[in-house]
Amino acid sequence: MMRFVLHEDPRSGNCYKIRLAAALTGQTIERVQYDIMKGDTRREDFLRKVNANGRIPVLQIDERFLPESNAACWFLAEASPLLPHDRFDRADVLRWMFFEQYNHEPNIATLRFWLHFVGEANLNRFQKEQIMAKRAGGEHALTLMEEHLAVREWFVGESVTLADLALYPYTSLSEAGGFRLRDYPHVCAWIERFEALPDYVAMD
Amino acid sequence: MMRFVLHEDPRSGNCYKIRLAAALTGQTIERVQYDIMKGDTRREDFLRKVNANGRIPVLQIDERFLPESNAACWFLAEASPLLPHDRFDRADVLRWMFFEQYNHEPNIATLRFWLHFVGEANLNRFQKEQIMAKRAGGEHALTLMEEHLAVREWFVGESVTLADLALYPYTSLSEAGGFRLRDYPHVCAWIERFEALPDYVAMD
Repeated sequence: MMRFVLHEDPRSGNCYKIRLAAALTGQTIERVQYDIMKGDTRREDFLRKVNANGRIPVLQIDERFLPESNAACWFLAEASPLLPHDRFDRADVLRWMFFEQYNHEPNIATLRFWLHFVGEANLNRFQKEQIMAKRAGGEHALTLMEEHLAVREWFVGESVTLADLALYPYTSLSEAGGFRLRDYPHVCAWIERFEALPDYVAMD
Repeated sequence: MMRFVLHEDPRSGNCYKIRLAAALTGQTIERVQYDIMKGDTRREDFLRKVNANGRIPVLQIDERFLPESNAACWFLAEASPLLPHDRFDRADVLRWMFFEQYNHEPNIATLRFWLHFVGEANLNRFQKEQIMAKRAGGEHALTLMEEHLAVREWFVGESVTLADLALYPYTSLSEAGGFRLRDYPHVCAWIERFEALPDYVAMD
């Protein structure tokens, strides 16, 4: 039996994804916590041992380390119902996971981090000037999700998959970054469906 | 037998990835070309039929459409030697593919697009102010690759995988964005190994 250790900052939605993937697939995961605001993941021992990229989450599997939240979720969910049997659907799950990391997270999660944790007054000029572009990018991502969910309950196929799991955390937290979820009623209904899943666990 | 059509702009490294995946797995792919500089992928028929996100590449598989370059490569490479049998290694391939889309492409490909295609004089103030941060981000990504390749020939395991394929295009094109590849000798040697693969095809 494999031992799983999640190297995380519990405020991070990317870290929470991995806890969700473990919970929804009935696997136990230990947790080691870092404070990214204090630079815990930029220290030499972390860079040498856990992730040279200086980022969390990292999923430790016995003595091996797997960075990137969506890769870690994929590892935990292989051979579970969170990954479809159909070849196109499996690639389509990855399509939404790459959309999440490229179009969604850099806008929606970053604005939450800047506005909710750092505080607008503490941002530098360069960050302040990016707020409008990130707001527009995040709203575009939410609009695409809204249109997709207008005619289906889950992102891929007829049941919950890793696509939903990857998109859920930062979408559900988006109001902390100034997004108005009530403008996206199908997204709100999908969030409710996700939170009603039997093995769902909330963020700390 | 499935019909594959690549909806692409041939100047895009993300589109080139999919041609590479087809070539290295011995599959034939038709090509439909768009000019992103002329807004071809923002037109209504493209948004309605090909990709509501207004982006290329999209891999058409018979009558279905799969956006996101790395998801399309995964579809083409499933059951090929480009995806390892080992469960950890398969997730580790995804780790590098997510790294590519999050840490590498937004810095290295974007600077190529801005400096080589748009031209520095034509950038707006907002773009110009991002050049330094994207330069630093791209150099950090190349440094991580250099350190990783110092002790191995390929990113994951003992032979070429989708991890190498996803990282190769924009790395090999990075000098067009002002990066100096000679500062990364292990990366240069890996590029040479990749280009020596039997079924390798060059960019147009």
